[in-house]
Amino acid sequence: MHQTINFSRGVPDPASFPVDDMKVMADRALSKYGDQLLQYGPATGFLPLREFIARWFGRQVPEVMVGNGSLELFGFLCEACLRPGDVVFVESPTYDRALTILQKHGVEIVGIDVGVDGIDLAMFEAALRRHTPKLVYLIPDFQNPTGMCTPLAARQQIADWSAQHDFLIVEDGPYGFLRYTGRDIPTMVSLAPDRTVHLSSFTKLISPGLRVGFMLGNPAIIDAVSRVAESYYITPGYFSQGVIAEWCNGGLLDAQLTKLRGLYAPRLAALLEALDRHLPGRLVGRPEGGFFAAITLDAGMDEAELLGLARDAGVILSSGNAFFVHAPSHRFIRLPFCALPPDVIEEGVRRLASMVAATQARQPSWA
Amino acid sequence: MHQTINFSRGVPDPASFPVDDMKVMADRALSKYGDQLLQYGPATGFLPLREFIARWFGRQVPEVMVGNGSLELFGFLCEACLRPGDVVFVESPTYDRALTILQKHGVEIVGIDVGVDGIDLAMFEAALRRHTPKLVYLIPDFQNPTGMCTPLAARQQIADWSAQHDFLIVEDGPYGFLRYTGRDIPTMVSLAPDRTVHLSSFTKLISPGLRVGFMLGNPAIIDAVSRVAESYYITPGYFSQGVIAEWCNGGLLDAQLTKLRGLYAPRLAALLEALDRHLPGRLVGRPEGGFFAAITLDAGMDEAELLGLARDAGVILSSGNAFFVHAPSHRFIRLPFCALPPDVIEEGVRRLASMVAATQARQPSWA
Repeated sequence: MHQTINFSRGVPDPASFPVDDMKVMADRALSKYGDQLLQYGPATGFLPLREFIARWFGRQVPEVMVGNGSLELFGFLCEACLRPGDVVFVESPTYDRALTILQKHGVEIVGIDVGVDGIDLAMFEAALRRHTPKLVYLIPDFQNPTGMCTPLAARQQIADWSAQHDFLIVEDGPYGFLRYTGRDIPTMVSLAPDRTVHLSSFTKLISPGLRVGFMLGNPAIIDAVSRVAESYYITPGYFSQGVIAEWCNGGLLDAQLTKLRGLYAPRLAALLEALDRHLPGRLVGRPEGGFFAAITLDAGMDEAELLGLARDAGVILSSGNAFFVHAPSHRFIRLPFCALPPDVIEEGVRRLASMVAATQARQPSWA
Repeated sequence: MHQTINFSRGVPDPASFPVDDMKVMADRALSKYGDQLLQYGPATGFLPLREFIARWFGRQVPEVMVGNGSLELFGFLCEACLRPGDVVFVESPTYDRALTILQKHGVEIVGIDVGVDGIDLAMFEAALRRHTPKLVYLIPDFQNPTGMCTPLAARQQIADWSAQHDFLIVEDGPYGFLRYTGRDIPTMVSLAPDRTVHLSSFTKLISPGLRVGFMLGNPAIIDAVSRVAESYYITPGYFSQGVIAEWCNGGLLDAQLTKLRGLYAPRLAALLEALDRHLPGRLVGRPEGGFFAAITLDAGMDEAELLGLARDAGVILSSGNAFFVHAPSHRFIRLPFCALPPDVIEEGVRRLASMVAATQARQPSWA
């Protein structure tokens, strides 16, 4: 039978990994910084990498912390800032692993819908009348799981609200450099630099297995988060950080971004084309970058049944419900496209469409 | 003035870091496993390293998990196993960072004294009459902070109690391979393999900055802990794990252990000699390996004053109180010796002794 097609995880294509450059940079980093990279060091991260990131984002070094991936830094930020009962706003749907972390902290999570026009500002405003959020977690660029961007006007409005209502914005931005069409939109951290913690990572730009993510924020927040980090792991993975510092300072980042955009843009195009052809009208919105697009199906079967039918049709999906604070009435399907070549994407969408058609024939409540 | 001598942290000597071998092994690991090392992978760790550790300790692969340092694995184990109100026994004094992690979980921590004869079994037994511990955290070999070993008879007794009272033993064993004199004592995990989680690390054997620690336990515990780990960081630092796997499989571990023992044994000897000469009768016990020895001072000044006087005398100490569940009436001083050459150790102890003498002259309550 045909090969299973995996639409379940947002992973980069290994073809993008700069393995040979990594060898050179590991050698150089060990020559230059061996004793530092192999020793304990401050929980804020390896200084030359913090310096590079500070220059890259136009910030000061004390505003930069580097850790073992941005998800874990988000967890440490939650431990530093949140107490049980605090209110946190998130997009709905949002990144499932961020939701899991928030749930651990016993906070009240309020979901604000994200649709074809980005985040629903009327719903946000209504929520602000009922709640005073301590923190608002957003993925403004190429959101996980919808692939959508928050429009500039909405970002400006949220920046204004953050000052009026005194909440911290957490901008999770790992996909921001992966725009394939259209024009960049200013980040939240550029619009509200004093009120935003920006999370990002080398995971989607160089490699997940190096586990290097970073956080930009005011020095008091960086200090508090680094104390939490130290209590967990004393020192983050300096060896990886040194290799990445050397790689970035070697000027390889721009070429890598160009390579990634060249590799992934045709995959997004193939996905959108296949969805237009086989599952028209199902897209949540038309992404212009990142790792994901998403579709919704209106009707009646439960998620376990949907995942089972997809598996039978040769497609692995992840839980759509997991992206929501409260499981939605519709079925939500995230489609990560970066690790699959265009012809496999087309075939995967074709299989999903056949499955939907078969289900419609069988079960009239399926829209 | 003379240079400050740092007795505050248990760090390896950078002279022990195999920088050149690391370059070779990073190159080889990337050649062999590049796509795996740079990608996401299971939270249990990089398979070839799990396989090496399983062979090393005579266990099965599903009984081995590798993470970003053993301290963080201990934290994940606590999250998987402990609930607020659970009782945990620890040695008193014990590793300060482990105490901090236990405190986060809202458990009741019961300290069992450690002295010249190791852990106080009468006190342990009395505590078992009052409490049913869920977990007992021990550092049987070259304990942090005292440097003492739990004698075999006490280990056997604790293994028996763990079966009778149904508690989990957590054996933190990062120093076990660093014996400089005397004979090895069987580990808790060898005496009670089904009831013990063994934590260890490459931090003290190869390098802290690689951040690679591991856990041995039954597959159900490994599975539960790896689910917690995944919720924090998805995937641990595979790149470092691959380099260590290649380094270990390349047969370099035995020579490294010999090198470490050769480097550190004279430092422990110098420390014990200096203490015998300058501060006789103060040792908690005479360590035969590891990273630490410890002394106690009987009397009356508070810790902040002691640390300040030491600083004035040119010696940096860490908080002794931090190693105790409840701050003791005496002053406790941990002396990490591995990162200091013998003449610096001798000079540091001489300064401490002068400080103690001056204090005695000034303040008769100082013993």
